[in-house]
Amino acid sequence: MPASSFYKFGPHSISAGQVFMKTTHCLGLVNLKPILPGHVLVISRRNVPRFLDLSPEEVTDMFQSAQRVGKIIEKEYGATSLTIACQDGPAAGQTVPHCHVHVIPRRLGDFENNDDIYDEIARSTAELLTNDDAIAAAGAAKHGVDFEERAPRTEEEMAKEAARLESLLA
Amino acid sequence: MPASSFYKFGPHSISAGQVFMKTTHCLGLVNLKPILPGHVLVISRRNVPRFLDLSPEEVTDMFQSAQRVGKIIEKEYGATSLTIACQDGPAAGQTVPHCHVHVIPRRLGDFENNDDIYDEIARSTAELLTNDDAIAAAGAAKHGVDFEERAPRTEEEMAKEAARLESLLA
Repeated sequence: MPASSFYKFGPHSISAGQVFMKTTHCLGLVNLKPILPGHVLVISRRNVPRFLDLSPEEVTDMFQSAQRVGKIIEKEYGATSLTIACQDGPAAGQTVPHCHVHVIPRRLGDFENNDDIYDEIARSTAELLTNDDAIAAAGAAKHGVDFEERAPRTEEEMAKEAARLESLLA
Repeated sequence: MPASSFYKFGPHSISAGQVFMKTTHCLGLVNLKPILPGHVLVISRRNVPRFLDLSPEEVTDMFQSAQRVGKIIEKEYGATSLTIACQDGPAAGQTVPHCHVHVIPRRLGDFENNDDIYDEIARSTAELLTNDDAIAAAGAAKHGVDFEERAPRTEEEMAKEAARLESLLA
């Protein structure tokens, strides 16, 4: 197995097939259970918990990358807006101590109440991203049957989406 | 009245006393009705609606500024985390068509449900920021008595906070 088959996201391992973008300081990741179609994360390559921990160069890379990705996914998923959110620290709802920003294509009416999306962002980010049985079980216990009803995607589905986004960014 | 007494934020006029930071491409503003103590906005100087409209230099300035401000306000208000959110477009809940990012100091337990803060962000940003009677009346009608109970601050209170933040950034 090549060394690049997994990437670290806090304490978690992310399949290389979920990575659609690699910049100097950041990675772009597709989700196992996207909140909405096209929901992605931009994470720092350095395993640091806080946005406040980033160097100026890392801040620039993260948000210029978020903008590049945002333009691509808004168009690709037929959206008209973007939710861009960073929970910077546990008291802000951050569940994985590795700096990351959510970039989510939005369309009018995609949620009955527009800001219910944040209830979804409030789930453990690890649940959204990784296929760890213990994490999934904890999520189901915490969030009830709804969470279970959103079936995790397969590695193949995620790899296909990542390849598509990578080609659009090229 | 000097030309700099007001700044434009979308169609609204913001008192110069609310501005605590001026960078090449951005302004930092204190709010009339902060969601939590220390809640500020970083806005682009250019009156463009979308994050996606910003040049790379503007993106860099906006988020390096958000980081600088975030460090200051987290410490100043005894917080441990930050909520950083950009509603980029109407379908994402953006209510003022002028690019802006909320930077909000967070403490454990500041909201009974951590993500209820987004219900507050979902209010019209103009209601949070400006003392326009028509906007306030519309907000009260929409949000009920709670909104009215959060009294708007005075120009003097806002100018004092802005001066304090400006000195901390210096």
